[in-house]
Amino acid sequence: MERFITETFLLNTESARRLYFEYAQNEPIIDYHCHLSPREVAEDRRFENMTQIWLGGDHYKWRALRAAGVDERYITGNASDWEKFERWAEIVPLTIRNPLFHWTALELNRPFGINDRFLNKSTAESIWRECNSKLAEPAFSARGIMKQMKVELVCTTDDPIDSLEYHKQIAADNASGAFTIRVLPTFRPDKVFPRSCETPDGVVSYLQYVAKLEQASDVAITSFAALRAAFAKRHAYFHESGGRLSDCGFELFEWTKPSNGANPEEAFGRVLKGETISHAESVALSSILLSDLGRLNAQKGWTSQLHIGAMRNNATRVFNALGADAGCDSMVDGAYGKPLSAYFDDLDQDGALPRTIVYNLNPSSNYLLASLVANFNDGAIPGKMQYGAGWWFLDQKNGMEEQLETLSNMGLLSLFVGMLTDSRSFLSYTRHEYFRRILCNLLGGEMESGLLPNDFDWIGGMVKRICYGNAKQYFRF
Amino acid sequence: MERFITETFLLNTESARRLYFEYAQNEPIIDYHCHLSPREVAEDRRFENMTQIWLGGDHYKWRALRAAGVDERYITGNASDWEKFERWAEIVPLTIRNPLFHWTALELNRPFGINDRFLNKSTAESIWRECNSKLAEPAFSARGIMKQMKVELVCTTDDPIDSLEYHKQIAADNASGAFTIRVLPTFRPDKVFPRSCETPDGVVSYLQYVAKLEQASDVAITSFAALRAAFAKRHAYFHESGGRLSDCGFELFEWTKPSNGANPEEAFGRVLKGETISHAESVALSSILLSDLGRLNAQKGWTSQLHIGAMRNNATRVFNALGADAGCDSMVDGAYGKPLSAYFDDLDQDGALPRTIVYNLNPSSNYLLASLVANFNDGAIPGKMQYGAGWWFLDQKNGMEEQLETLSNMGLLSLFVGMLTDSRSFLSYTRHEYFRRILCNLLGGEMESGLLPNDFDWIGGMVKRICYGNAKQYFRF
Amino acid sequence: MERFITETFLLNTESARRLYFEYAQNEPIIDYHCHLSPREVAEDRRFENMTQIWLGGDHYKWRALRAAGVDERYITGNASDWEKFERWAEIVPLTIRNPLFHWTALELNRPFGINDRFLNKSTAESIWRECNSKLAEPAFSARGIMKQMKVELVCTTDDPIDSLEYHKQIAADNASGAFTIRVLPTFRPDKVFPRSCETPDGVVSYLQYVAKLEQASDVAITSFAALRAAFAKRHAYFHESGGRLSDCGFELFEWTKPSNGANPEEAFGRVLKGETISHAESVALSSILLSDLGRLNAQKGWTSQLHIGAMRNNATRVFNALGADAGCDSMVDGAYGKPLSAYFDDLDQDGALPRTIVYNLNPSSNYLLASLVANFNDGAIPGKMQYGAGWWFLDQKNGMEEQLETLSNMGLLSLFVGMLTDSRSFLSYTRHEYFRRILCNLLGGEMESGLLPNDFDWIGGMVKRICYGNAKQYFRF
Repeated sequence: MERFITETFLLNTESARRLYFEYAQNEPIIDYHCHLSPREVAEDRRFENMTQIWLGGDHYKWRALRAAGVDERYITGNASDWEKFERWAEIVPLTIRNPLFHWTALELNRPFGINDRFLNKSTAESIWRECNSKLAEPAFSARGIMKQMKVELVCTTDDPIDSLEYHKQIAADNASGAFTIRVLPTFRPDKVFPRSCETPDGVVSYLQYVAKLEQASDVAITSFAALRAAFAKRHAYFHESGGRLSDCGFELFEWTKPSNGANPEEAFGRVLKGETISHAESVALSSILLSDLGRLNAQKGWTSQLHIGAMRNNATRVFNALGADAGCDSMVDGAYGKPLSAYFDDLDQDGALPRTIVYNLNPSSNYLLASLVANFNDGAIPGKMQYGAGWWFLDQKNGMEEQLETLSNMGLLSLFVGMLTDSRSFLSYTRHEYFRRILCNLLGGEMESGLLPNDFDWIGGMVKRICYGNAKQYFRF
Repeated sequence: MERFITETFLLNTESARRLYFEYAQNEPIIDYHCHLSPREVAEDRRFENMTQIWLGGDHYKWRALRAAGVDERYITGNASDWEKFERWAEIVPLTIRNPLFHWTALELNRPFGINDRFLNKSTAESIWRECNSKLAEPAFSARGIMKQMKVELVCTTDDPIDSLEYHKQIAADNASGAFTIRVLPTFRPDKVFPRSCETPDGVVSYLQYVAKLEQASDVAITSFAALRAAFAKRHAYFHESGGRLSDCGFELFEWTKPSNGANPEEAFGRVLKGETISHAESVALSSILLSDLGRLNAQKGWTSQLHIGAMRNNATRVFNALGADAGCDSMVDGAYGKPLSAYFDDLDQDGALPRTIVYNLNPSSNYLLASLVANFNDGAIPGKMQYGAGWWFLDQKNGMEEQLETLSNMGLLSLFVGMLTDSRSFLSYTRHEYFRRILCNLLGGEMESGLLPNDFDWIGGMVKRICYGNAKQYFRF
Repeated sequence: MERFITETFLLNTESARRLYFEYAQNEPIIDYHCHLSPREVAEDRRFENMTQIWLGGDHYKWRALRAAGVDERYITGNASDWEKFERWAEIVPLTIRNPLFHWTALELNRPFGINDRFLNKSTAESIWRECNSKLAEPAFSARGIMKQMKVELVCTTDDPIDSLEYHKQIAADNASGAFTIRVLPTFRPDKVFPRSCETPDGVVSYLQYVAKLEQASDVAITSFAALRAAFAKRHAYFHESGGRLSDCGFELFEWTKPSNGANPEEAFGRVLKGETISHAESVALSSILLSDLGRLNAQKGWTSQLHIGAMRNNATRVFNALGADAGCDSMVDGAYGKPLSAYFDDLDQDGALPRTIVYNLNPSSNYLLASLVANFNDGAIPGKMQYGAGWWFLDQKNGMEEQLETLSNMGLLSLFVGMLTDSRSFLSYTRHEYFRRILCNLLGGEMESGLLPNDFDWIGGMVKRICYGNAKQYFRF
């Protein structure tokens, strides 16, 4: 076959190629949002085979396998790793035009160097062998792959109750020079919000979580004020441990001005007694914690991340069998502009609005969101309010192009902090390559058609900053 | 003039042309959703003139005529057929960039062979004569046109009370070999849902319908249970008559878990007494029937179709004069993701979720819907949950391209069951040609720019299956 | 540097260039919606420097400056005009791909003739001097610029209480031949709607406004009936003064059938006593006034404009400091299709629906809105219901292309009344040039790829009409 992932993949003009090769390709990677396991980095995990590193936790692939009619046994069931790989290989040809098709080709190309054949039924065995033997080499351990991919810094996603022991272990290796890539925690306090307390089962699991938070924070959580204190204490702990970002996920963003709500102590008191609360009470309590989070972030120079628009665990049958993140999540529809604006405004009035990146899942909110966040730029921090990179279902060519288009029209692309993997896998770093090629292709094409100045210093410099420099400057790692 | 609809119309690359000519063009048509009159097929209707076959029931054209300032007399009024045709011809030049422009040119090209001139005021008379004389030939009867267009199978849209006598007549002709194209009914039970019972007038018309359903089903509908029994009985009758799909239309999809609602017998009892019910009651009753429909479809291997997002009969003045489907319908806005997901989940938990195709009208829901349905693929039926073809206002070049883009990004384009006409007219089959050209143009262009493998067996095979093979396999006709 | 804004800017094909040069470029401008100051035209204002004419009221630029991290002192504060210009110049290079980048280049090119360098830190001083010296010439007064740009007629946006004295002064100059460009008022009655009366402060400011309306109309507003009479009287006054359009702005469009609401006199009576009213009451009262407006417009052959989807004054901190229109507005999300349709339907049933142009801000409503308005074309006025040009955040290349695409698919592009500036600045007329280039590029490209007939009389004629002729015919100036 003709090689598919060539040097000029996605680069359709001479200018695009020049931008990519001279300005984008060699920039290091700051992967400021991902879901890698810090333990696997700390322990420099080796992977036995491609199924472990590539299919194990990848609900994108599971979803495609189910759509293709593959039995669950070969997806999350008890089939062997080889059988699972083989089934995946068989359906890859059906993923034409789905992002999985390009991702698969890119990931086999880098780091594995396989670009002379597509993965399919007939190549499955040779690719399985070739990749597995590479995985046995030191350059293909967790750390090895990160080094190969020129990663400079990674932010994992961590619960406030997390001890961050693995982050400390890695930091020690950084300090000793044994490992140069930094791995920082991100404060993801979703479980602290009493969202689940609208149902009896939810209260039970919430109180189990609160007990762990008590331990982690060494605060007796006997009141809502105590919960807030524990929350702030863990935030401080994350800060000491190098954390510089928070992250929260929302179905539709809800928020009410803290002063409006019911008595938070009264409502939280009922939670502590194991009683349910109403949706309005749950939102009121969460709103206070969200405002606390904004203030803490602003005080410490952190960046808030908000991920909005996911409807999760929609297939109860699968959730009961496999739990969350099993490939049955999708977008949700509905309005959330007004509460989101009110949240930012409330913090902004107090001078307590931190750097903020907002990601949305349903593309029908792209322009809303990009225009909304820009209301709160304050003339102090360049690019303070960021309309974030294409996320999850939008993390594909079309979604990335739309994100760039939306951001360009509603704000300043020049100040964009760029791409991230959002991934659980050490093989996802080519997502940065994919993004960089798409960015350069867009800009290069417009240089050639006269929409942009034909000035490589100017446009190339912007590319370089979007790939690396802006993130380096924006986050205060 | 230069010919407009040439062989290479819409095919901008060599690869696109090769895909179309070698893989797409000659595939038969399975038109699995349309609104043709089965009687006109059974009786092999001849049309006297172009106004009868082309303008009579076409509310797309009516809408354009009104927008252009043409008096209603020449649209639906008592002007002569020639006068109506002449007015239409006069405004065709104004339809530039509206899908009507391409459709008009395509439909005059096939089956009429007119591609040396555009329809306009000065060509109106010659085209009227030429087409009308063709319409007098046997090859231009209802069946004649279907044969010319390589139609293999058609699914009409039928009410549960329909006797299906014309379908039987056609089936008899199929059996005798007199006619080889199959024409199957689709179960469209919208009128069984007591949606109209929120107003006194609506209850009256609903009860008139129920009386007809009693007759058709031979079930005395004295309770909601009896209504459900009649519903199931008609479903079985459609199955015996070759029906393999159902279809329902929704403004915004509403559904509540049957166990949540008020007592359905109590509410339906009030309907039977001629009393109105609340919106919540109407939704609760309809939800039970929708769940019944899903279960019946799953049991019999049918496919559910859901059409979501139309706001109908918006101009009361026109509705009072002409009734429904008069060209005053449009999209609606609003959220429906959660109830739709809940409906699928409820069936899926009971193993009773059938093959499903969802069509949506407001393109701002494209990604929501395509991502949502894919949550319920089950690993048993390849391509089980389908994000359907561009519908109604989206049945145009841009809409088709967006549907392909959305489906590609959110699911597996390879398994798409392809295009349909959704039409009342025997002249709409070129919609399949239009779609196939657009599909081949998209894929061929991407093959040439390196986004897709340059492998005609692979991509051409996929094209072939989307045009015909996937539908052939998916529906169990 | 290579020149950027060349003659062929945005015109990528030979056909596009021919359409632009032969059909579009020389058409006069009818700017039927803008926010120019009639006083500045009446007094033929001279501008001392570029900051006064270009940065003073331009919240688009303010927004970009804040996003770039420029201190408010250099935006709306007490820095000197030169300092403000210099800061703007410094950040222009960061606006790459934002519409400000193209607009800036276009506006320096016309009328200032600067196209040999980009505005940036190093060119700031030379451009400041060169433009300021031009501004001292008569050809660069308010009227001078309008003449240079071939403006034929302008509609400003005016409050019902406005005396329209400057419009009269200009009309006198028109009559004497001293000035040939007509400047007509637009009736913008937003402040008459008692929307603000849901809060005590809002009632106070509303009553202050009512007092002014009493004076202007010479009607004692002691009842809601009197308010309606004053409203109609001012509408008649605008008509006598040459007004032919109204305009209203909406967050989400709300409307209830007048007969449904509470007693309007009772509710308005409470307002007159200084009491607040509920949201439902405010909507009910506004709905009656909106219906009055529609009827008055229909009677007099006016055109209604509706601008829907802006969420305003979101940053309270900035609003408290600078008031409205300070660059902290954005889109809003939410459904409004049903009330909008009901409003049109109510007027249409009474034969009282005027020509209407609807503009929307959140592009996720594009197709909804374009399909919805077309329900109400009545076969009497060609192009009666218009889906308006890209507005505010959508007034950029992508937004204009989407508007053209949406309108083309949902209606008749041929009858489109074309572009407007919506601007407060005398330097915005190149927005028409931008639009015309984009329109010609779109159509020319499609002529070359075979999507449109290769017929310059036909397509060129359509271009000409969209640029000028349709507006000339549609509005009855």
